[in-house]
Amino acid sequence: MNKQANNQQEAYQMYSIGQVQRGTDGVYLKVFDTYRPALKQLGQFSHVMVFWWADQFDTEEFRGVLQSNPPYAEDKLTGVFASRSPLRPNPIAMTTCKLLDVDEEAGIVRIGDIDAFDGTQIVDLKAYFPVCDRVEQAYIPDWLVGWPEWMPENGIGLEEGEA
Amino acid sequence: MNKQANNQQEAYQMYSIGQVQRGTDGVYLKVFDTYRPALKQLGQFSHVMVFWWADQFDTEEFRGVLQSNPPYAEDKLTGVFASRSPLRPNPIAMTTCKLLDVDEEAGIVRIGDIDAFDGTQIVDLKAYFPVCDRVEQAYIPDWLVGWPEWMPENGIGLEEGEA
Repeated sequence: MNKQANNQQEAYQMYSIGQVQRGTDGVYLKVFDTYRPALKQLGQFSHVMVFWWADQFDTEEFRGVLQSNPPYAEDKLTGVFASRSPLRPNPIAMTTCKLLDVDEEAGIVRIGDIDAFDGTQIVDLKAYFPVCDRVEQAYIPDWLVGWPEWMPENGIGLEEGEA
Repeated sequence: MNKQANNQQEAYQMYSIGQVQRGTDGVYLKVFDTYRPALKQLGQFSHVMVFWWADQFDTEEFRGVLQSNPPYAEDKLTGVFASRSPLRPNPIAMTTCKLLDVDEEAGIVRIGDIDAFDGTQIVDLKAYFPVCDRVEQAYIPDWLVGWPEWMPENGIGLEEGEA
């Protein structure tokens, strides 16, 4: 299995496995029929990481943006790998979400919130394992100090006016 | 921007942006020349989430595996979305890594460790933001209770004998 690094770029194909739905009754993930068996036991976890495709930024121009001045620190030119901007070489986004309910039969995963529009395509779900994802001693740049040290209780949603 | 969910699967193209390198001098990420500007400011963070492609499992057969009995709980049939198995519809893996050093000019990111082989292609890097990724109250299934509640100091690497 051990292959040597060869400095060669590869291309891969991703297929969406469901979609975000925002309704008057809350926010949920609708998993396509084929993939419903993959939800088994997910309801035993408190949180799930949702990998989604920011398809409005899936253009050659946006995928070529490598640095930007983030809205929260406009004087700090920042590489996109040091940010969560959806403008990046692969416009894949990841949001950790609070799990409210998993209906394995219907393929419906109710979540606290997510910063993705209605209809956004989801490409993966991964249960949140503290041993993998919960960092005890994490630091961030000086210009971000003062930000919350924990994910908000209900997760991260759209900004007001976006939904 | 608001599109309605249409229950329709989409396909997307990902391109690798670098590779994992495991040497006698440690483990690092080698970012391809084109993408080096995207590393700016990354060294200001303590941790980075590395998105990589488990390409030995990128076959129709492995991508069709939706449930498995995980090695850590062999009697618990588990959906792949409730696991971190690299066998999944899109064989994308994500490992949170401790940042040791970022050389923006050379495109080299030294990390504590990662559970990926030498030569593994990387598709994205995202700085670890506690406000997005650090969950204060997380629970896991009963059969996993006893697992560490935090990521190990140096991160997660390969099992003994794998590297």
